[in-house]
Amino acid sequence: MSALADLRAYVRPIRLWESAAALGHWDQQTNLPPRGVEARAAVVGQLERAAFDRVISRQLADLLQAAERELAGASQVERAMVAHWRREHRRKRAVPPELYQQWVEACSRAHPAWREARATAEFGRFRPYLEKIVDLTRRLADHLGFEESPYDALLEESEPGMTAGKLRQIMAPLRADLVPFLRRLGDAGRPPAPLPAGPYPADAQRELARRALTAIGYDFSAGRLDDSAHPFTVGLGPGDVRITNRYCPDSPLPGLFGALHEGGHALYGQGLDPDLAWTGLDSGASAGMHEAQARLWENQVGRSPAFWQAFHGQLEELFPHLRGLGPQRMWQAACRVRPSPIRVEADEVTYNLHICVRFELEVELIEGRTQVGDLPRRWREAMEEYLGVVPANDAEGVLQDVHWSGGMFGYFPSYLLGNLYAAQIAARARQDLPHLDQDLSCGDAGPLRSWLTDQVYRWGRTVGPEELLQKITGEGPSPRPFLTYLKDKYSRSHRL
Amino acid sequence: MSALADLRAYVRPIRLWESAAALGHWDQQTNLPPRGVEARAAVVGQLERAAFDRVISRQLADLLQAAERELAGASQVERAMVAHWRREHRRKRAVPPELYQQWVEACSRAHPAWREARATAEFGRFRPYLEKIVDLTRRLADHLGFEESPYDALLEESEPGMTAGKLRQIMAPLRADLVPFLRRLGDAGRPPAPLPAGPYPADAQRELARRALTAIGYDFSAGRLDDSAHPFTVGLGPGDVRITNRYCPDSPLPGLFGALHEGGHALYGQGLDPDLAWTGLDSGASAGMHEAQARLWENQVGRSPAFWQAFHGQLEELFPHLRGLGPQRMWQAACRVRPSPIRVEADEVTYNLHICVRFELEVELIEGRTQVGDLPRRWREAMEEYLGVVPANDAEGVLQDVHWSGGMFGYFPSYLLGNLYAAQIAARARQDLPHLDQDLSCGDAGPLRSWLTDQVYRWGRTVGPEELLQKITGEGPSPRPFLTYLKDKYSRSHRL
Repeated sequence: MSALADLRAYVRPIRLWESAAALGHWDQQTNLPPRGVEARAAVVGQLERAAFDRVISRQLADLLQAAERELAGASQVERAMVAHWRREHRRKRAVPPELYQQWVEACSRAHPAWREARATAEFGRFRPYLEKIVDLTRRLADHLGFEESPYDALLEESEPGMTAGKLRQIMAPLRADLVPFLRRLGDAGRPPAPLPAGPYPADAQRELARRALTAIGYDFSAGRLDDSAHPFTVGLGPGDVRITNRYCPDSPLPGLFGALHEGGHALYGQGLDPDLAWTGLDSGASAGMHEAQARLWENQVGRSPAFWQAFHGQLEELFPHLRGLGPQRMWQAACRVRPSPIRVEADEVTYNLHICVRFELEVELIEGRTQVGDLPRRWREAMEEYLGVVPANDAEGVLQDVHWSGGMFGYFPSYLLGNLYAAQIAARARQDLPHLDQDLSCGDAGPLRSWLTDQVYRWGRTVGPEELLQKITGEGPSPRPFLTYLKDKYSRSHRL
Repeated sequence: MSALADLRAYVRPIRLWESAAALGHWDQQTNLPPRGVEARAAVVGQLERAAFDRVISRQLADLLQAAERELAGASQVERAMVAHWRREHRRKRAVPPELYQQWVEACSRAHPAWREARATAEFGRFRPYLEKIVDLTRRLADHLGFEESPYDALLEESEPGMTAGKLRQIMAPLRADLVPFLRRLGDAGRPPAPLPAGPYPADAQRELARRALTAIGYDFSAGRLDDSAHPFTVGLGPGDVRITNRYCPDSPLPGLFGALHEGGHALYGQGLDPDLAWTGLDSGASAGMHEAQARLWENQVGRSPAFWQAFHGQLEELFPHLRGLGPQRMWQAACRVRPSPIRVEADEVTYNLHICVRFELEVELIEGRTQVGDLPRRWREAMEEYLGVVPANDAEGVLQDVHWSGGMFGYFPSYLLGNLYAAQIAARARQDLPHLDQDLSCGDAGPLRSWLTDQVYRWGRTVGPEELLQKITGEGPSPRPFLTYLKDKYSRSHRL
């Protein structure tokens, strides 16, 4: 057997452990009885440890070395596989185990402190924990290595190849355009009406979510839809990509767009080339590219007039008091812009500005240019400057997100990049599929899904996010297509 | 650290792997999308292999040897742990891996053949597969070792300490009493009426099952109830013992007794001493003792007049057309005796006779005294002799059970032993708890559950089934308490 084949056989068990751990997590969010939490943590901990040990092993190092000598005759998948595991091996070995352990413990202590601080809106109760995490995360970054900013070492985890410098170049023009556009919408736009008040029973909303997922081509014979407190998608292996969702009693829209968002993630997972199974390339190109697929179906499709042309009847059928409302009113209701202090409630126009606030602050924290104690004030100032809203307190401000309490620095930009990639990819799809809107307005998402499968899904992680974007659109990450799309759409929905 | 502590630390990961595999199985029966079957098989296969490898390892052998030198000062739990893992290690190492692999493959080929044969009622299509399995199973038994009968080597897996010889001594008087009693019931008894015809909607039956489980004290914060094609109970660790059940549209009784049966298994799991977690002693004393706990709640409690005194109102509430039927009519309906060719539909009186038929035939097969080709004829003869019914064809006869197609020889007796143990233990409980019937007729299962926790549940596998029975009742396995109980109850329900 060649070293490349040996490598492939060696990494398969890593992915199988990860699948078992992912099932444990999924079950924890959907089914686990409260008293089973501790046992589950022990089981999942052992699975994750087994995967980790196999990634940092001397045996993998040797296999990679041997495989790297065979790259001349290797296929694209094989080259990508070697590069992927080389990177995983390098990054996981780079951090001293004791430091990593300290970081894990600091995060697990910080999480309950964050919850309490948020509940009482007292940043001071979280501050020492966050200081500890920032300190340890900076030390992690030093071990992971970087060229310009320690933040780059963290970004690399979710968005390979991305840097703080590149992000600044992307965000500056984005912000420069968005902030005045948002102001103009508020001053001169005529905000559309929301949907009429309920009832919106949870069962009918679940059925709506199933119909929306069916409409975009989610394969229920290779997945399922369940309830959870926070929607997520998880791929447990070929033929098993699961979605969870939640439903808001006041409106069917959060549940519908949640389903389309997770459905986008899930189509990516269901569209992977089966030959990539268990290779490590059987996931998205990056967190940002995954988010792009979610945003594409949620916003580019789900918040389009064409989609509502086909889909409005489903809402009218499931919620009889909406009968006769029609596609135009529903589309507009789905496109209301309202600056809010809360990111997860943000609309398409303001969402990226929320990310800009977080990005700036977390870069400064990791580069040591801002102190944790200054965060609440800096947060309020930035929110007022970009969004024109000031949080009533720190619970609605700097304490709102779970990420930092879990040491997740460098992840927020993926959300923003996802929005930009989605716009870039959708613009290209419209060129390649001139009948796209017509198809969508007839309820046929098939051509778009096939195009995306061909262009994005099937490649998995064989191509990096920037290279993939280049291949599809001819350019790297750019805010321009997003801005063009956004201004056009919201000028119309708000009748500017 | 002492060798005993080392051993305990060493076996914990085995149980954690097994928990992850059990979650995979549970999910497969309740949630898995059809296209995810293959991926799941790969994941569970790896988990089971990891557990197996750790059990047969040289390291465990060394640890056991060292721990056995420390037994003088060891606790009861420690002694039991050493004995348990010595036995596991010995049995799993006894079989040559190639032979075991052949056996596994023969079983997996036989399963679809059995399904087809059963569907078409053609034993001939299954016969060559079963011949292969019997041959390989006999060779397994030779490697596992035995004193009198190769069947004993197989029995040891589910019922440690039990032998074919002991079983013959138990079954002979049982059969001798049951066969004429069954005939008398049929000739002179007045069979009670069944429950009125439906509707019995599945949702109301699920609610009935929840209420029954709540009534016997199943802790839903440490478990859950789901639907599956075949009811089962699985313990995933402390605080997580799950039940599945199914519902029959024509009658609420199969679903209710299914819930009580699985609830009995689950109370055993929930009542284990938490200190046994992940030691290998965190399961039932044997398959038969586990079955006894299921049968005790299903039959000794659930089919008692006292239970129906308290519970009849639940059925009257959930199925309004039953209103006014009352406890006596419902109890009688739950105690109808009707010989049937099908084991899983059998009542309390005939069930053990079904097992006698299987036991006799499988002992003969494993001892080489009967050929596979003779099974259908022998089956029909035995059924007629013991139960007075002749299956219409082999699908209703020798092909009805899945067990042999999966190489499960030596398991059937656990069902019968469960019935006998349950009667022995219940008889003792009635002595210790003089108000038992009064408690149950007020809907209070607490005293019985506490007594069982103290006498049975908490011990887990620290005591073997026969020793445990001796401790509780002062005698070994015996058919007498069962026969006394059965004749008294069914003479009354059938007004002999």
